[in-house]
Amino acid sequence: MADKLKGNLVVAQGGGPTAVINASLVGVVQEALAHDDTITGVFGALHGIQGLLDEELADLGRERPDTLDALRVTPSSGLGSCRYKVAAADYGRLLDVFKAHDIRYFLYIGGNDSMDTAHQVGELAVSAGYDLRCMGVPKTIDNDLDFTDHCPGFGSVARWIATAVRDAGLDTEAIGVVDKVKVIEIMGRNAGWVTAACALARDHPDAAPHLIYLPERPVTMDRLLDDVQRVYDRLGYVVICICEGARGPDGQPLSISTGALDVDSFGHRMMGNVAELLCREIAARLKLKSRYDRPGTIQRVAGALASVTDRAEAAMAGQMAVRHAVNGASDKMVTLVRESDNPYSCTTGLVDLEAVANAEKLVPAEFINDAGNDVTGAFLAYARPLTGGPLPAYGYLQKVMVPKKLR
Amino acid sequence: MADKLKGNLVVAQGGGPTAVINASLVGVVQEALAHDDTITGVFGALHGIQGLLDEELADLGRERPDTLDALRVTPSSGLGSCRYKVAAADYGRLLDVFKAHDIRYFLYIGGNDSMDTAHQVGELAVSAGYDLRCMGVPKTIDNDLDFTDHCPGFGSVARWIATAVRDAGLDTEAIGVVDKVKVIEIMGRNAGWVTAACALARDHPDAAPHLIYLPERPVTMDRLLDDVQRVYDRLGYVVICICEGARGPDGQPLSISTGALDVDSFGHRMMGNVAELLCREIAARLKLKSRYDRPGTIQRVAGALASVTDRAEAAMAGQMAVRHAVNGASDKMVTLVRESDNPYSCTTGLVDLEAVANAEKLVPAEFINDAGNDVTGAFLAYARPLTGGPLPAYGYLQKVMVPKKLR
Repeated sequence: MADKLKGNLVVAQGGGPTAVINASLVGVVQEALAHDDTITGVFGALHGIQGLLDEELADLGRERPDTLDALRVTPSSGLGSCRYKVAAADYGRLLDVFKAHDIRYFLYIGGNDSMDTAHQVGELAVSAGYDLRCMGVPKTIDNDLDFTDHCPGFGSVARWIATAVRDAGLDTEAIGVVDKVKVIEIMGRNAGWVTAACALARDHPDAAPHLIYLPERPVTMDRLLDDVQRVYDRLGYVVICICEGARGPDGQPLSISTGALDVDSFGHRMMGNVAELLCREIAARLKLKSRYDRPGTIQRVAGALASVTDRAEAAMAGQMAVRHAVNGASDKMVTLVRESDNPYSCTTGLVDLEAVANAEKLVPAEFINDAGNDVTGAFLAYARPLTGGPLPAYGYLQKVMVPKKLR
Repeated sequence: MADKLKGNLVVAQGGGPTAVINASLVGVVQEALAHDDTITGVFGALHGIQGLLDEELADLGRERPDTLDALRVTPSSGLGSCRYKVAAADYGRLLDVFKAHDIRYFLYIGGNDSMDTAHQVGELAVSAGYDLRCMGVPKTIDNDLDFTDHCPGFGSVARWIATAVRDAGLDTEAIGVVDKVKVIEIMGRNAGWVTAACALARDHPDAAPHLIYLPERPVTMDRLLDDVQRVYDRLGYVVICICEGARGPDGQPLSISTGALDVDSFGHRMMGNVAELLCREIAARLKLKSRYDRPGTIQRVAGALASVTDRAEAAMAGQMAVRHAVNGASDKMVTLVRESDNPYSCTTGLVDLEAVANAEKLVPAEFINDAGNDVTGAFLAYARPLTGGPLPAYGYLQKVMVPKKLR
């Protein structure tokens, strides 16, 4: 056990919001308040590291307990977030703020960039001889942090997107006599974890989604259109889930590598989005009517369908970060460690912030099928426990047909 | 009481799927099965009127009761849907199918077009001297059927979109230091009811959405950008809900009237979507970073958040259509009649199919604010009871600030 380090704690939230990042925040706050012999005050920096630089600190010890309970199930980042990259010139200022407010604990809830920031802040304190414990709490719907089985935020977006894709798939099946193809564009730049989770929508053979494209497996537009035609010939309708970062063989996003000729009214090349591009190609080359859904930020912060497992683990990660810091740990991120799959159970571990900051965990090869247009059973087994239980069962008509009587 | 008309019943689903159209279907089926002294068989036509023409009839009396119970809470159209417009040449065939299968009851669940089809079918039977009772069951997320207080399907999409906009609004508030403006594109060609329902997201002053644009009130791009700048200057971020059918003063969709210069690689003028167009204009002219969400069909079939009120009313509408038909009514659509607002209660009525088929109920002037960029309290009072209860309460930090100690 390390020496007791008395002082104030600052917690901040970085990067894109999620459905459960506030559960981590409340986990931190409630645990910190329980250590009042060591942690003298619990502050929240508004808008991440930016709030720390601006000395914008809210006294979270003065929040009502029922506000914290309600915040635990409120999506998005209650303290506000940022994507500010700390510059060399900022470090002196940060140290001044720490000293001025006797901050001895700094907890950053976020993804790779936030972990990098937390690590830099920790290094700064060490080199300045200032006693500070820096801890990271993982958060990202992208699920792309390494050294952790999965990331808080992923299980909830997985549940939301599986629910939405199942429903939108039934929609296309019903109206497929009109709109033959539906393209659903999913968040993710380099890692296709969320797109992969669309496969959790399937509750019967031939259920949507029929094709899944991840950035991890480059695909040509020709190959993609062949896939679409083949599914259409078999089922009469097609539901495609494609990651916004899906790539062509040139490594460029499909939306750029294939849509390069499109220009706007100023003559600028248009980025477009991959779903819209795909719909245009399907219309032009397969002569099939299609439409696209692009849930965008709605998917990442959907609170109503948050995974109960994900929320509990998010809170646990926050809580454990405080405990470890109080016990002397620093420059570490809490990890989630899967103990068992059946029944699913999960505990926490620790990893060096520096290691996390410089790694990106993509969907591994064993989770993607050979054709590069679907996931494997191994992925489903990995992801399913994180979503907090099966989706509600739907009723599908058996359709015993009445014998035809006319020609 | 009319003479008892013995024979088979056919039910079909037309137009776009909804979260509760299967509740209407199950309402029809369960009520019809209870009239087995009159209704000898209960058939479902696959893919709407198309299935009737193709003699594709499922015997719904042979479905398991628990399948029907599960189907009641399953979104999309269990029988499949269509947008087929019955041609003059089809009517002889329809009559042949009715006669061949002794069909004496035809119930069509759908919107204006389906009501028109049901009316035409009824007229056909009368002119051919064939005893047939035709009834319409209202269904549309668009809420644009006249002579009914509201339409089954609307309350559920209203609840879904209010939930999604509240969450996406919190997302933008949190990350507004990066993405200043969020545009959410909502379904609706001529009627802005669903877009108006986004206002139900607000649970505190200054909550999103900040601007709401309906097709009922044409707007210039200049005016719209002025609105955005004004909200941005006040709050530092902006959430805009815009109907996909939002129009310019020329009566053309904004996406066409303003985006006319954009051409694709074949030189074709691009339709684009209004949200994407708006983001480009905001970037180019206001120099603000923006992004857009376009939930598309996901919004209209979202079963998990369906309004319990809407689902119960959808089932009631189906049930009452059967009862009225058995009692002799024909060529009518069941309407929803609001009896009281506090507590909310609703009963059913009847209206001529022909009247419904030829009318479209737009959002009335008293539901839109003078500036044309928001709804009124009267709209909120109208819409709120349809969503099945308030959204779950969220927790927002009070943020008692720690006094600054540095410059």
